[in-house]
Amino acid sequence: MSSALHSLPTSVRVVEVGPRDGLQNEKVQIPTEQKIQFIKLLTEAGLPVVEATSFVSPHAIPQLQDAGAVMAALIPSSQTQYPVLVPNLKGMERARAAGVRSIAVFTAASESFTQHNIRATIDESLANFRPVVALARQEGIAVRGYISTVFGCPYEGSIDPQRVLSVARSLLDMGVDELSLGDTIGVATPNQVVDVLDLLVSQGAVPLDRLAVHFHDTRGTALANVLMALQMGIHIVDVAAGGLGGCPYAPGAAGNLATEDLLYMLHGMGIQTGVDLEKVVEATRFIAPFLGHAPTSKYYQAALSAG
Amino acid sequence: MSSALHSLPTSVRVVEVGPRDGLQNEKVQIPTEQKIQFIKLLTEAGLPVVEATSFVSPHAIPQLQDAGAVMAALIPSSQTQYPVLVPNLKGMERARAAGVRSIAVFTAASESFTQHNIRATIDESLANFRPVVALARQEGIAVRGYISTVFGCPYEGSIDPQRVLSVARSLLDMGVDELSLGDTIGVATPNQVVDVLDLLVSQGAVPLDRLAVHFHDTRGTALANVLMALQMGIHIVDVAAGGLGGCPYAPGAAGNLATEDLLYMLHGMGIQTGVDLEKVVEATRFIAPFLGHAPTSKYYQAALSAG
Repeated sequence: MSSALHSLPTSVRVVEVGPRDGLQNEKVQIPTEQKIQFIKLLTEAGLPVVEATSFVSPHAIPQLQDAGAVMAALIPSSQTQYPVLVPNLKGMERARAAGVRSIAVFTAASESFTQHNIRATIDESLANFRPVVALARQEGIAVRGYISTVFGCPYEGSIDPQRVLSVARSLLDMGVDELSLGDTIGVATPNQVVDVLDLLVSQGAVPLDRLAVHFHDTRGTALANVLMALQMGIHIVDVAAGGLGGCPYAPGAAGNLATEDLLYMLHGMGIQTGVDLEKVVEATRFIAPFLGHAPTSKYYQAALSAG
Repeated sequence: MSSALHSLPTSVRVVEVGPRDGLQNEKVQIPTEQKIQFIKLLTEAGLPVVEATSFVSPHAIPQLQDAGAVMAALIPSSQTQYPVLVPNLKGMERARAAGVRSIAVFTAASESFTQHNIRATIDESLANFRPVVALARQEGIAVRGYISTVFGCPYEGSIDPQRVLSVARSLLDMGVDELSLGDTIGVATPNQVVDVLDLLVSQGAVPLDRLAVHFHDTRGTALANVLMALQMGIHIVDVAAGGLGGCPYAPGAAGNLATEDLLYMLHGMGIQTGVDLEKVVEATRFIAPFLGHAPTSKYYQAALSAG
């Protein structure tokens, strides 16, 4: 009867994306110094990966125009990786100059989302990344590929998992080390997680240990989706402290799955992460006053309420 | 690989407890007329069970002192059951006089919680219910038994699942039709759901189809716990519209699992409920202005944000 739990991993690699994916979608400009302190607190909590910023055009995302200053302030560590998002070769050059050892590129499974979001077709975005990934590999820099709108698109609605497989294959073929499957608008339900992972891994021969899941909690299903992904063999999960980020397609709604909520569930299940939950709460408590709204993490809210 | 989904039910019976368990824990007194309208809207949404109120002492729970007036206003229906909570024989007599066809009794798996909550031992509370349940059976009135603090207690911490089994057996032995396993303070994680259900059903021979799960979403794990319960064969789930109720042990934190969040997940998974999700949103939207705080349901917040 408890066979559902037999396949669960004993440990999970928690990828903190709050400083990048989270803050990128926050309306209020956060001072550079506070971002740096936030990242330091997340590091002290023991998070193995903290996606720190994006070397994107300052005009495109003003919130992250201080990418160079943020990276300059972070001390290289063997314990914590600080990947950064790079949209193109220009961003890659800036990231390399900043001494970055790990990058991420970002595309989508939805053609219309890619058009709206980066004004390119999926194929154009992939072609754009090819020299970036080649340069990274040459320099020994790790590369993660984000595939967004995997479970639904704000323009197209449902997405054929075959599209996801096609993009996944292209990214792996060009040398990307790890793929993050994103539920950008927070519409996924657990059956979709099964369908997509089943196609990618069983039928598409995508290596399971190179897949991460990235859920937004817009409709409250993120943690249930993670539970299903863990049962399917996934052991890398993206989260943002406090549930930072919001949803640009439903302003005022919840953002990324909260680091606190994930850790509470994993630790309760005896799954190791190496992360100190209470220190993540402290990091969220530090950044909260700068956001202009209360963090949406339920664990965080309960922790604060309980004193 | 998708074996995790094979055992899922094709339909789930959604038990709405917002008007009772939800409002009981709301600080602001809601006018009787608004409660009645709220229940009518929930009924129109197609919910098969709406726990309407409690025939408890008005001194103990002032919010529900209008139990008689609420029940008098509800039209008996073959589509919707309106169970009420009764704490003792006196409450049972009032409920019977009001024409109630379905009742619930409430005890706990934690001795200290029962002491604090109803100033009795578990055995005393069970002895107290025996004549209530006997009378109900004599009258053909259905009886549900709530077992609270199944997954943790605010005073004792963790609870031995053997305690849950012992209380469950006592309730079934005295003639209770259905048991609701409650995570009163919202601490459960999915492994506990497996442990408790495994003990009750596989080892304790408690009939699976007489068990409901009742999670509070205080730390965000409620929907993941439901997913695991469904995989264990459960097909009755308690929820409250909007996530009403809060947590008396963490003021300001989330309350019951929100009806909207559950329905969104179930319908996305192709599991039938017979309930119209958007009509539940309308019921929550109706009651929200009377609460003095925003409903915590993430689906509800996203629905309102999206316009």
